[in-house]
Amino acid sequence: MALTAEQQQEIEAARAAEGRTRRPTVPALEALLFQAIPVLDHGFVRVVDYMGDDAAIVQAARVSYGRGTRAANEDRGLIRYLMRHWHSTPFEMCEIKFHVKLPIFVARQWIRHRTANVNEYSARYSVLDREFYLPAPDKLAAQSAVNRQGRGAVLEGEEAARVMALLRDDAARNYDHYLEMLNEDDQGRVLDEGRQGLARELARMNLTLNAYTQWYWKTDLHNLFHFLRLRADAHAQYEIRVYAEAMLGTVEAWVPLAAEAFRDYRLGAVTLSAQMLDIVRRMLAGEAVTQESSGLSKREWRELQEIVGRAG
Amino acid sequence: MALTAEQQQEIEAARAAEGRTRRPTVPALEALLFQAIPVLDHGFVRVVDYMGDDAAIVQAARVSYGRGTRAANEDRGLIRYLMRHWHSTPFEMCEIKFHVKLPIFVARQWIRHRTANVNEYSARYSVLDREFYLPAPDKLAAQSAVNRQGRGAVLEGEEAARVMALLRDDAARNYDHYLEMLNEDDQGRVLDEGRQGLARELARMNLTLNAYTQWYWKTDLHNLFHFLRLRADAHAQYEIRVYAEAMLGTVEAWVPLAAEAFRDYRLGAVTLSAQMLDIVRRMLAGEAVTQESSGLSKREWRELQEIVGRAG
Amino acid sequence: MALTAEQQQEIEAARAAEGRTRRPTVPALEALLFQAIPVLDHGFVRVVDYMGDDAAIVQAARVSYGRGTRAANEDRGLIRYLMRHWHSTPFEMCEIKFHVKLPIFVARQWIRHRTANVNEYSARYSVLDREFYLPAPDKLAAQSAVNRQGRGAVLEGEEAARVMALLRDDAARNYDHYLEMLNEDDQGRVLDEGRQGLARELARMNLTLNAYTQWYWKTDLHNLFHFLRLRADAHAQYEIRVYAEAMLGTVEAWVPLAAEAFRDYRLGAVTLSAQMLDIVRRMLAGEAVTQESSGLSKREWRELQEIVGRAG
Amino acid sequence: MALTAEQQQEIEAARAAEGRTRRPTVPALEALLFQAIPVLDHGFVRVVDYMGDDAAIVQAARVSYGRGTRAANEDRGLIRYLMRHWHSTPFEMCEIKFHVKLPIFVARQWIRHRTANVNEYSARYSVLDREFYLPAPDKLAAQSAVNRQGRGAVLEGEEAARVMALLRDDAARNYDHYLEMLNEDDQGRVLDEGRQGLARELARMNLTLNAYTQWYWKTDLHNLFHFLRLRADAHAQYEIRVYAEAMLGTVEAWVPLAAEAFRDYRLGAVTLSAQMLDIVRRMLAGEAVTQESSGLSKREWRELQEIVGRAG
Repeated sequence: MALTAEQQQEIEAARAAEGRTRRPTVPALEALLFQAIPVLDHGFVRVVDYMGDDAAIVQAARVSYGRGTRAANEDRGLIRYLMRHWHSTPFEMCEIKFHVKLPIFVARQWIRHRTANVNEYSARYSVLDREFYLPAPDKLAAQSAVNRQGRGAVLEGEEAARVMALLRDDAARNYDHYLEMLNEDDQGRVLDEGRQGLARELARMNLTLNAYTQWYWKTDLHNLFHFLRLRADAHAQYEIRVYAEAMLGTVEAWVPLAAEAFRDYRLGAVTLSAQMLDIVRRMLAGEAVTQESSGLSKREWRELQEIVGRAG
Repeated sequence: MALTAEQQQEIEAARAAEGRTRRPTVPALEALLFQAIPVLDHGFVRVVDYMGDDAAIVQAARVSYGRGTRAANEDRGLIRYLMRHWHSTPFEMCEIKFHVKLPIFVARQWIRHRTANVNEYSARYSVLDREFYLPAPDKLAAQSAVNRQGRGAVLEGEEAARVMALLRDDAARNYDHYLEMLNEDDQGRVLDEGRQGLARELARMNLTLNAYTQWYWKTDLHNLFHFLRLRADAHAQYEIRVYAEAMLGTVEAWVPLAAEAFRDYRLGAVTLSAQMLDIVRRMLAGEAVTQESSGLSKREWRELQEIVGRAG
Repeated sequence: MALTAEQQQEIEAARAAEGRTRRPTVPALEALLFQAIPVLDHGFVRVVDYMGDDAAIVQAARVSYGRGTRAANEDRGLIRYLMRHWHSTPFEMCEIKFHVKLPIFVARQWIRHRTANVNEYSARYSVLDREFYLPAPDKLAAQSAVNRQGRGAVLEGEEAARVMALLRDDAARNYDHYLEMLNEDDQGRVLDEGRQGLARELARMNLTLNAYTQWYWKTDLHNLFHFLRLRADAHAQYEIRVYAEAMLGTVEAWVPLAAEAFRDYRLGAVTLSAQMLDIVRRMLAGEAVTQESSGLSKREWRELQEIVGRAG
Repeated sequence: MALTAEQQQEIEAARAAEGRTRRPTVPALEALLFQAIPVLDHGFVRVVDYMGDDAAIVQAARVSYGRGTRAANEDRGLIRYLMRHWHSTPFEMCEIKFHVKLPIFVARQWIRHRTANVNEYSARYSVLDREFYLPAPDKLAAQSAVNRQGRGAVLEGEEAARVMALLRDDAARNYDHYLEMLNEDDQGRVLDEGRQGLARELARMNLTLNAYTQWYWKTDLHNLFHFLRLRADAHAQYEIRVYAEAMLGTVEAWVPLAAEAFRDYRLGAVTLSAQMLDIVRRMLAGEAVTQESSGLSKREWRELQEIVGRAG
């Protein structure tokens, strides 16, 4: 992973400096604070700040529902109720800020989630580092033959070797040329006094989409769960899913009750359409429903079979 | 102000419980934390959580602008530069959560700012308290004759007395009837076992718009500044302006550099249109510009006179 | 319903004026355009503008998924796929603008949906009309004994009469006093030259929460569906549900394929938690699961029984 | 510009198909509808749908301000007033949808404006075309020596030739390798039956940041003006500014009164800080203010000199 010695020192210094606060604190998350969790070959995720905890969710729900809920519900039950019934605003009372290092093509997927605050490293102002993502051999997947957005078997032998070489050489060459156009070396020293150097905002266009960028990304817990539901899902591209999974780990340290409810009512949950629900009821009543008698399309019938555990 | 003894105790208990954190802390804001700042006759604002500080703004700006800015700028100058040039994302890295008690007609103005997280006390679930806003005598203003949304002179004598009596009596009577329809007394006890009591979600419609509600309101610093620019402004209605001013005080404790820049570049700043700018340049070149020779409408000319300090 | 003769004329004039456009048009929605659909006793909903149609959703999906989808899917199947798999951005390509007249307490629920554009009639600038919501006798429900936010049986006899009288008299009296404080009559004429009249922005606080307000409300189809899912639901308060249902009717005229998918995959759909899904699978495998052996709380078990159609 | 014959035909067909509508129509924008406005070497902007017009802004303002404004203001004056006094919601009542083809590094700047709806061509599903941005010779600027995000003189001679060759060759080679890894030719035919082809979602990472992508981008007029204020500004990078300027042209056809107000009160306007305002007043009173006596930093003093037209 890509932390310089200097950065590691900064992190250690930040971790060493403790202060006193009246705000809610979460020791399990404090233990992780600032530390970089490695993701992919040069990326990381680290929590750099947070606000609120499980109790803040409960507190917000209780201001909404007033005196009525004060005695009645204990925290876990209330949080599960909120999650199950899509009450989103109490979860918005918690906020978290990540520092993330990630390939540009992953960043482009990620940024489609608009309900977050972002400060990205700007290649218009500064020079990017010589770092780019190269898939591990077991992640070098072929295009799926059945699913336009999916992956098939892992490439092997000569084809795999050729792909790896192309990815590595093209990224390296384009980075070399990037520096050459900037008229700089890796240390930022001028290469040739006789040249002016292309503007950074132009030179960056020669970089490949697997170059690494980084950003601060801050969001509330409701929107983070929405992000995680889509990106920690099995259908998400592997290269973003590993970030989502690392973040989900930090959420479990932060708000364990909400994270448990999220797993039960979102990640592990399924939605039955009106038609599917009707079929499940018929099946439970003992009817032997077939695709033909179900009225579902083949695709939906297959999805239903997976849901009820009868696939394959 | 409307804190019960029980609430005061809760606040004292929360203030007494300090923990240790690796997050940035702001002692000047910690000193205010949880304490209710009185606003209007029964309202308050209190900070119940926060994330980030002036340094977090600087840190976010520096990840955006990269190695380039590290040495060059000291914090105050950088924050002022960001504010002056409308760089909003670094300010979004700070977050604050308020607990506010406010009249419903103020809440209705406030909620038009959509970029915040809100959990409001629900009169659908719970019974509202017997509290409503009555203007102080010096705030009982007449309709302005020249400005449709403005206030004129303060009402006096018989007219003032009559207005005060109407506001007070109508709010009280409607609240009494609210409880009667609910079939409850002030302590939540059933009034008449022979009645069912109207549903809370219906009974609330008998309340007046000066009844107090409360909410948690959480936003980032950029959006808070936007709110304060509009609501701490002299043209804002007095009853919301006093909330904005109380909040601005807490912001000054929290992020003093950003708050100073906000005062200089937003609150105390003026915008000159292309036409106004041209006129100011002509005036500075010695030309005696009149409304006629300015090309401005009378209204804009008057606004320009106020800006350049030549009004009235 | 509350349209003046003048307003009816304006609507007729607007409906009579047709123009030519290259944009997609939807004849079934054009037929409804501008017409007020009555809701509650004085409210209405009317569509005043729209952008896009079912084909615009398909077109957006195809730009996202590129050449690949061009031939493969017909429109209905693609729209259903998008809805089923939570692809929200294609639905955001359609936009609709409503003009709504509604009681203030309904407006306060409604505005919690922040992802819309709103222009509300301002009682700070103008005088509200003498109109307030009074429930029809069969909607005058008691507080539910089992559900804090629900309604029980309809009030009857003396209690119903008393409640109706209180609601009617208080709203009327408060409106009379509102005008008196403004020093205006119903036609906007000054009542007493010797008085100044209270500022509108203050006088409005004497109004009751069942007074009618109105607004333009504009949103995209994805966010509209989110609104309708929550507000056309059986758990929503009746007084907002009737607005949602009227709007859903206009959506069916506008984007029939998307509306059908919405009914099947959202309104009529259910979500099974990870635990519920496991139980359903066990039941389908022939196991006789009881609440005790299910591991669910009583509340969730009851919810599951309702889902699988075995409640009661 | 990069429209295939097939696309041109589709556009002509769409333009030929007119329908009747009761919605507001804007003939000047209808005349432009669907037509691609060339931008950069292979990009374009085209308006594909719109909602509302200048009158819709006025109508929304009047529902907000009620009966009061009906007679008083004519449209142009009211729109200018709204713009001058930062009343944003009436402008949100207009919506526009663009189809844009643009280099990926421009798309990455653009997407930072989060208040829009976007459907982007997905290189996860489909294969990108062989098109990449190469700056025209007079746009091949050196890095500015004085401004980290600015451009200096245009590169010339050998340096320019070398930069152009690198940009062109690297983009072309990387695209060739992209197809090779996909195991496809330019027509989508399999290259080598003995290979599987790398998954599209992985192969795309080999593309350079000047490759072209495309999207539908839909936003309301208020947020569009915000975008244009930042991106049609002289400080914006040239490669995004040309898109903003093309879009501003379409806005002038669409809402001429709002566009004029935007030019006067935003694009051509300046903001004076509290300190600057004080200095301008002193200057107008005849005082000869210097940087030293101004209290401004050198940087701000220089900015003020530019504002009052005394720079250089």
